[in-house]
Parts: sequence; C-alpha cells; structure tokens
Amino acid sequence: MVSVKKLNKIAAPTSPGALKLVMFGAGELGKEIFVEAQRLGMECIAVDRYERAPAAQIAHKSYTFNMMDGNAMRSVVEREKPDVIIPEIEAIDLDTLIELEKEGYRVIPNARATWITMHRERIRELIAKEAKVETCGYTYARTDDPEEFKDGVEKIGYPCISKAIMSSSGHGSYDIKGEGDIEKARQWAIKDARGEGSRVIIEEFIDFDTEITELALRHLDEDGKIVTTFPRPIGHYQIEGDYHSSWQSPKVSEYLPWGAESGREDEGLAETAERKIYEAAGKITGALGGVGIFGCELFVKEINGEVKVYGNECSPRPHDTGMVTYISHIQGFNEGGLHVRAITGLPIPAKIREVDGREFRVFDPIAPASSHVIKSPSEGWDPQYRGLWNALSTPGVNIYMFGKPMVYLTRGRVGIVEERMGLALALGENALDAKKKAEVAAHNIEMRTRQVHEWKSQDQAHDGRKKHLFRQ
Amino acid sequence: MVSVKKLNKIAAPTSPGALKLVMFGAGELGKEIFVEAQRLGMECIAVDRYERAPAAQIAHKSYTFNMMDGNAMRSVVEREKPDVIIPEIEAIDLDTLIELEKEGYRVIPNARATWITMHRERIRELIAKEAKVETCGYTYARTDDPEEFKDGVEKIGYPCISKAIMSSSGHGSYDIKGEGDIEKARQWAIKDARGEGSRVIIEEFIDFDTEITELALRHLDEDGKIVTTFPRPIGHYQIEGDYHSSWQSPKVSEYLPWGAESGREDEGLAETAERKIYEAAGKITGALGGVGIFGCELFVKEINGEVKVYGNECSPRPHDTGMVTYISHIQGFNEGGLHVRAITGLPIPAKIREVDGREFRVFDPIAPASSHVIKSPSEGWDPQYRGLWNALSTPGVNIYMFGKPMVYLTRGRVGIVEERMGLALALGENALDAKKKAEVAAHNIEMRTRQVHEWKSQDQAHDGRKKHLFRQ
Repeated sequence: MVSVKKLNKIAAPTSPGALKLVMFGAGELGKEIFVEAQRLGMECIAVDRYERAPAAQIAHKSYTFNMMDGNAMRSVVEREKPDVIIPEIEAIDLDTLIELEKEGYRVIPNARATWITMHRERIRELIAKEAKVETCGYTYARTDDPEEFKDGVEKIGYPCISKAIMSSSGHGSYDIKGEGDIEKARQWAIKDARGEGSRVIIEEFIDFDTEITELALRHLDEDGKIVTTFPRPIGHYQIEGDYHSSWQSPKVSEYLPWGAESGREDEGLAETAERKIYEAAGKITGALGGVGIFGCELFVKEINGEVKVYGNECSPRPHDTGMVTYISHIQGFNEGGLHVRAITGLPIPAKIREVDGREFRVFDPIAPASSHVIKSPSEGWDPQYRGLWNALSTPGVNIYMFGKPMVYLTRGRVGIVEERMGLALALGENALDAKKKAEVAAHNIEMRTRQVHEWKSQDQAHDGRKKHLFRQ
Repeated sequence: MVSVKKLNKIAAPTSPGALKLVMFGAGELGKEIFVEAQRLGMECIAVDRYERAPAAQIAHKSYTFNMMDGNAMRSVVEREKPDVIIPEIEAIDLDTLIELEKEGYRVIPNARATWITMHRERIRELIAKEAKVETCGYTYARTDDPEEFKDGVEKIGYPCISKAIMSSSGHGSYDIKGEGDIEKARQWAIKDARGEGSRVIIEEFIDFDTEITELALRHLDEDGKIVTTFPRPIGHYQIEGDYHSSWQSPKVSEYLPWGAESGREDEGLAETAERKIYEAAGKITGALGGVGIFGCELFVKEINGEVKVYGNECSPRPHDTGMVTYISHIQGFNEGGLHVRAITGLPIPAKIREVDGREFRVFDPIAPASSHVIKSPSEGWDPQYRGLWNALSTPGVNIYMFGKPMVYLTRGRVGIVEERMGLALALGENALDAKKKAEVAAHNIEMRTRQVHEWKSQDQAHDGRKKHLFRQ
C-alpha cells in the first residue's frame, strides 16, 4: 500500500504540478467525485467502456476501453502518471491494479481492499475473522458439486440465501425456502456469476429490522495519521437487490426500528444501534485500510431488547445509497466531495460527538433527506425525459440527470432491471417526509428512447412489480 | 424579448433534443452555472477568449475567440443552435446579441437588459426614472469638455465621485474631494474607460451605512408567469472597487447597521431595511425584465431613524458577491444553480415569508456564511498554490480553486489589481465568525507562477494596502 501524505500544494489543472486523478469507471458516482475535484482545482481524467459516460462529460480528458484490458489500463496510467488512481467499478483488471500499486501508484483505497471487496468470501472472512464483526451464519460451497451445495444448505438451514462469490447488486443470488429450491439456486449461481463463479456463500436468512449503509470515511488527521469520520447512518431499500431509495437524518432514531416510523421512539436503543454501527464500520474499514469513503452494508436487529449489528458487505468507494448526501450534506461535501478530499490527502475537520458513551468523529447532515432513483423502463439510444416541471415544483426537491447517452437494460433472474438514469433528491421535515417527496418527484419523470417511442415512467416496470411505497 | 416557457422535457446532452446552453464568457461564475447545468443533464458549450477558462474545463465543448467579434459569435450560435444564450461578460458584441434575439434566440435575461446594464447612464436612468427607486444625487458630463465636467462637479458638490459611463469594477472612477481633483478625475475617466468613454456620471458622495447586493431571481411560477424570488441580502466589501469578501445569514440584522456588529440590535429597522431592499431590487429587475438572477447593488443608510435604500447598479447575471451562496445555500441551488433553473424555465418553488408587513418569495440560506477571494499577487503561467491543508482544516471551511491556467494582473489607477484565482468559503456561528474564518483560510494560501518563483500570499499585495480585516 502506498502511504498517503497531507496534500498542501497543487498547480492549475493540465499544467505541470497539477494534481491528477485517473478514474476507472466514469458513472454517476464518479461524476460527483469529479464535480468536487474540479471545484478544488484538480485535473480529472475519466476512463469507461463507452463514450459520454457521466463523469467523462465533466472531465478534462477521457479514454474509452474495456477496463478488463490490463494493458490498456497500464498504458493510460503510464501516459498520464496520475497522483491517484480511483477504481470506480469492480469490472477491472485487478492484476494490473496490484502491479501499478507495487510500482508506487496510489490506488484507492488500496489494491488489496479492492481485491477483497469484489469477492464475497474474502470480504466475509475479513468482516468475521479479521475485523471480528458479527455476521449472520454462513458457509461456502462449490456450485459444480451438488452434494456439497446441498450439505451447505442443510448446515445453515431453511430459509437461507445462496449468493455467487463474485457478483454484485443481487445478481446470482437465490432465496432457498425449502429443499425444492436447492437445485434451482445452484443453477442460478452458475449462470449469473461473474468471474470465478465456481463457489457460493450460503447465508442464514435473518429477518433483520433494518438495513443500513454507513459511509465510513478514512482520511488523514492533523497529525497525518489515518482516522475515521462517520457521516450519519443511511437507511435504504432495494428492489431485487438493486438500489432504489435511501434516507438520512440528523435524528437517526427516526429510521431505526425504534423511531418515529415504528411508533416506539426508543431513543436509548437507537443510540446504542448508532454506536454499534460506527464501531462495526470502523472495524471493517480499519481491516481494509487505505483512505477514502467506504459503503459498509450492515443489518440491524433487536433481539430481546439487545441491539445487534451484523456486517454484510463493504464497497471501497462512494456507495449508491450515499447519493442521498447530494442533498443532505453542505455544498462541496457530498460523498464525492468527501471521497476526493480523503483520497488526495486533504483534511476533513472533525466534529466530535458522543454516541452512547463513546466519542466519534462525525459529519452531520443539514436536515432529513432522501434520494430515489429515476430508472428507465425503456432501452435504447438518446433517452428523453419529461415531467421535469412537476418533479421540481416542490420546495427542497432537486433532480440529477446523469446525462447517459443510452439506456441499457439488464436481464436477470428476477426480470428486467432498469438502468438508473437520474435521481430525485429531497429535504423534508423528517426522513419519512423526505422519502415521500423524493419518490413522488422520481415517479413524475417519464422517459422514452429511439427504440421505445412511448413515454413511460418507472411505474411501468417490465414485470409489474411494486415500484413505490407511498403512491397508489 | 423572447418569451420563456416552462421547461418540462429534455434529452441526453449531445443527443438530439438536448437542452443546449451557449455561454459567452466562461469564468468562475460561469463554472458554477455549468456544474449545476451538468447535474440537470443539460449540454454546456463555453466560449472565452482564452483556452482552459474555468467553465470551459467542465463544458461538453468549448470555443476560443474574442467576443467583441460579432461574426464569430454568430457563427457559433448558428452552428450550435442553443436553446439559451448566456452572456456572462460585458465585453461582448452587443449588436450581434440584439440581432440574435430578434431572430428568435433566447438571450439572458434579454438583449435590452444587457445593453442597459453595461452602461452607467442607461442603468441609472432606468433605476431612477423607470423603476422609480431612490438614488444618490447625480449628473452627467462629457469628458472632452473641461467646462461641462467642472459644472457637473459643482452641481453635485464636494465630495463627489466621477465614473466613466462604460466601465466596471471601479475602473475609471475617481473620488473628487476638492477643486484640485477635477482635472485628474477627467483625465482618469478618459484613460480607463471602456468603449464609448466620452461621458461620466458624477455622483453625490453618500456616507452610506452599508452596501448590499440583492440577488433578485426572476423565474416562472406555477402559472408560467414571471415572479421574483429573493435570496437573503448579501453584505460585502470591496478593495478599490474590486470584490473582496461577502457574507449572508438567515438573520439579516446581524450585518445591517443595526445588528449584532453595531451593538444596537434594532431588529425593527433591520426588517424595514430588508423589506426596502427586496422592494428596490424587485422594481429594478422588473424594469429590466427577462429571467435569471440579477446582482442589484444597493446602499443602505439610516437618516434620523428612517431607513433609506438607494439603487446603484445592477448586473443581469450571477454576481461576484453572490459566490457566498457556494456554501450558504443547499446543494444544487447556489447562484449558478438558481440562474440555470430560472433561464431554462425550471421552477424555483417559493417559500413565502412576511417581512415588515409585506409578503415576499424568499430563498433561505442554511446558516451564516462568508466567502473571501484568493487573489494572486504574482502574474504568469501555470500558477501553483500551497497552504491547502491549513486552509481546509477548520470545520465548515471550503476552498474553490477556479483552475485558471495563468494569472493576469490589471494595472489601474489605484495600483495593480490582482487576479482572483480562487475562493475561501466558510459557515460560521454568525456572519462575523464566518467572515473571519473565510479570511483566515484565504490568506493561508500562497501562490507562485513560472514568472515569479517566490511564494506569496495576498498579504503581499503590490501596493501594500490593507488586505484583511481580522488578522494582524
């Protein structure tokens, strides 16, 4: 791992001495990294496999190639000699990344963490054994051995979930409710896995109370040592494993299981949960190392009055659910802005807050807030959007359109997964109010493409499954 | 003037149906317009007379030429066919702008307002006679007629100020304290004026209590009619007519003459002043017409318990002092974000607030805030900056570096005017606290260029004049 030093000096972008960022994967999360990097006067170079990717549209320069091609990656890095290499996707040639780090390039957060987090077995072992954070029960099995697969399922018991070792966003996962699902789950893991898909993790099904992302931020403190700052935990929901909406509030108890939405309002348990969330995220990201923002996916459950926080996964970069910070944080400090500060060695001044008897460095949101995806039900080039006026007519609501040149639909087990084209963001009186506003705004947007001329909102999803919580 | 319609539909940037913005003048204020336009999924085309201008660095496309060349302007407009033309500087060929508007292009806010506001006589006549807003005493005189010049000065009386009719940022202005200054003032107006500099405005010197910018925002309401929304008034100070620092707070009385800083805390007078500020700005921008944000420069003075608000000037675009909104407003809605919404026909939902007995549409800051320029004392290519770590180590402080490729120093009457290369921004407990934080952060930054190797902060200004208020 390349040690990070305090950044004190920069030069104008594209001039000698400029601070250069090369980002592999130039999507919507990368776009906000580059917005904030541009505001800090850094030089931004985007790489993606298609032209006009969101972050490429605001970069100083961009390259287009498949990032599984390690030679192409190396060629760009040797040409640009970046100060920081930002892997923003998992579909990247890891061997090249590891080599580049050995040669002295700063890879974010570090090549080992990238290697670990792209693989369910490695990250689970790190969470459970190295970070010593509680997890649900689990075991591993080979997919090419029906007996081993069945033994694994029976060891964990019903219901359980099998997940391909290398996959993301719910691909390759299967809920096993009884013996009749075992063979289907095994076939599914073989079909939908990415890379070395010969193994699955089989997990105990826990009926957790809520799912949380903690955006733990590792960065240098005033002494040049790495410390961890904690933005407020983020609540979220997915549809079939794919990010749909998230929320954040100065008052965490609102959206933990004991908060306003539950009618229980047990502040004590909520504060304990908040402390355990920070502790778990701190341990997991501490074991991964390096600098930058991490999306720690955690499960929270109360069992007989005791708060349990389970570690699930962790991604070493800005996280889908963290897009709520595009409105919940002050200007310059959304998850992209926090990430770019951390990875370049800029300070993130701490505010110390006591949570359930322990002090943490925290980063506060300005108000309760929510974000909700705008997904296109239609695929094809040159997407068009309508309904902007209504969507933006509510105070505290904003819309981000990522500017993607085409819509690509992913066909998976659970049906078609629509591509995320934009985001509705809202501030509210409380988290629930913000969630409603963001959802209404998002569903106000209709889309069409060259391929599909009919205007459709995300209400018109391909499989007709429920897409919204609050509207009838 | 081209009428503005509600914007309800856009397409992906660079595809058919994209909403295209062509901006003439691609400086730091334009950079934030384009940041927010990119976030809304619009297509951004920058024009400036030099390459790598701040807004050009995040544009989809850029052109480089002198914008006094009307043919070049027309050529770009005919090639790009933009939905909106944004004149971001005054040094632009106005005849071409007027023609383009006649041909159906939307010019922001409209060609007439651009024509009026670039000329001190025209805007003063509009303020005093059309908008019927109080101003200081004034008269006009030709600079090539010493007798007329002297008669004008004597009509207004001493002390007074002469200002070239066509100029900006204090260029061409002269304080006339007595008869001995008359000829010097006349010569100065001849030398430093821009364009048709054959006339001056001679103004009564009023020892006003404070100077305010009101960023009045004209935009469409839910019925498609133009209404005006008022961000909180901005306090500021200049050095020799050039923007140096500004501040804004939810509590206006803090920085009006009766606020916390004065020790008087007369909330009643402050609220009256706030109302009169909105009224004056509303009248002036109403007379100018069109949509977008306007920087209305107003003077405030208490005379025997009565609050007076005088109209001074108005610029039909984001304003230097409004850069404080880069931290005082929520994400997406700084003056660049508000401007881009207004000019493209997007809504800016109103919050109605009663001020001194009258209701206004207002836009609230999140907290007391301030911005302070980072100016380079050295000129030359490839500027470098150091001191970032310390500058960014205070909670609530941010730094924007504009990314300019070179530093250009303007030599004027009052000495050398350093170029603005960046900005320190701060949130504070109150406006004074924010002002101090922003100033300290800005003065922490040192700069050098290829031409001047020694590191210098803005403390080391060329003429040694006082550059900061709070530090020793």
